[in-house]
Amino acid sequence: MVTIPESHPRYKSLQKREKIVAGIEAGITSRQGLIAHGRGEAFDYLIGERTLPAALRATEAAAALLLTAEKPVISVNGNVAALVPEKLIALSTLILAPLEVNIFYWTEERVQRIVAHLERLGATNVLGRDAEPRIPGITHARARADTAGIYAADVVFTPLEDGDRCEALIKMGKRVISVDLNPFSRTSRYATVSIVDDVERALDNLIALIRAAKLSTVTTPDFDNQRNLSAVIDEIIERLRVEESGC
Amino acid sequence: MVTIPESHPRYKSLQKREKIVAGIEAGITSRQGLIAHGRGEAFDYLIGERTLPAALRATEAAAALLLTAEKPVISVNGNVAALVPEKLIALSTLILAPLEVNIFYWTEERVQRIVAHLERLGATNVLGRDAEPRIPGITHARARADTAGIYAADVVFTPLEDGDRCEALIKMGKRVISVDLNPFSRTSRYATVSIVDDVERALDNLIALIRAAKLSTVTTPDFDNQRNLSAVIDEIIERLRVEESGC
Repeated sequence: MVTIPESHPRYKSLQKREKIVAGIEAGITSRQGLIAHGRGEAFDYLIGERTLPAALRATEAAAALLLTAEKPVISVNGNVAALVPEKLIALSTLILAPLEVNIFYWTEERVQRIVAHLERLGATNVLGRDAEPRIPGITHARARADTAGIYAADVVFTPLEDGDRCEALIKMGKRVISVDLNPFSRTSRYATVSIVDDVERALDNLIALIRAAKLSTVTTPDFDNQRNLSAVIDEIIERLRVEESGC
Repeated sequence: MVTIPESHPRYKSLQKREKIVAGIEAGITSRQGLIAHGRGEAFDYLIGERTLPAALRATEAAAALLLTAEKPVISVNGNVAALVPEKLIALSTLILAPLEVNIFYWTEERVQRIVAHLERLGATNVLGRDAEPRIPGITHARARADTAGIYAADVVFTPLEDGDRCEALIKMGKRVISVDLNPFSRTSRYATVSIVDDVERALDNLIALIRAAKLSTVTTPDFDNQRNLSAVIDEIIERLRVEESGC
């Protein structure tokens, strides 16, 4: 990885970019994942590279959903495996949920590499090697799920999920928590709880909220996902107006 | 290239992504170009993946500028070489302007590959092999221009140009036409005419407008680039409001 001085004004963003590029070199991340990352960068710029109040509310709702789930599963793709593997493992330990490797551009080799990467970092419950096409309503190649994991789950935490898969999981009756910086994406629209935030910030918040909730009673907050997405869009519009006045 | 099912709702966008990835495999596109493509995708989402009225007005101004130019040049980077090579060649033939390979992450090998790629597709007037650092005010590595091309041009058509280079070309007294999906980018802010549109749509429109104009008298439209950029941002805000009401 290229060393970026911490004093650089775009240090955090550049660090993330280096992690994704390292993921490509390690055979974990796909090239398409690099493009998806760029898309995230643009949306993160529009929300000011910080957690919006509405995103924090969604994260609270997600924490409650995960804590009250019977069979929660954490879906892991190539980008999150490169960006936040330790945080995913911490979440997995905290809520006793398996990690399931679930990649859009599927190759057995890449699945194996991601599993090995997570296990090297201490993960003990990683599924996905035995995933077969089982999710109805989407093309064969995208329909893979593990019977012990996503296929049987009631709540699926899917950071950076594809819209088709998100819709198909909802149609199977599952509750889906997405993390996606695009409030207009099909994933954000279909998910039960849509966290419009950077995946690193979202996981930090989610882990902190779950740790705190474990010490007290879990309450499911009054949460309206559609209204919350509208609040995110209002924030973006507000920022565009400020930018426009600087043009 | 990966085969994307035509049934996928994001088929067009995914097809473009595949072209960019193929560009990497062919040694034409850079990794940084992939992230930049992703950023463009995000802004394309925001404008509804269609040509905004303000973008069409900018394209009309661009057509007039190219038709009345004495020495127009078309700048070609790794992303446009992968995405729209045939359209760039068609434009080059139509306005009798050379193509000049002009890449941000410069290597002689990549320049050669892009030149060969364009020539294989029928281009006959491709510059860039002999480009030397000649543009004042930017770092040596970014300052390359061909004496027979960009260095001597009065109008430069630079789809997906870097902000620093755009500013330096303007300071040299050239008129610059940019195609950049980010209305807030330094390129969009510096260019003489900023087309905030997808490069494929912009080139289709530009070629159609130039073909039509060639049959009639060329008129230079009354065009204010700053006002037009504000109109783009207003249209984005308008669209966000419509999207929001559909959430």
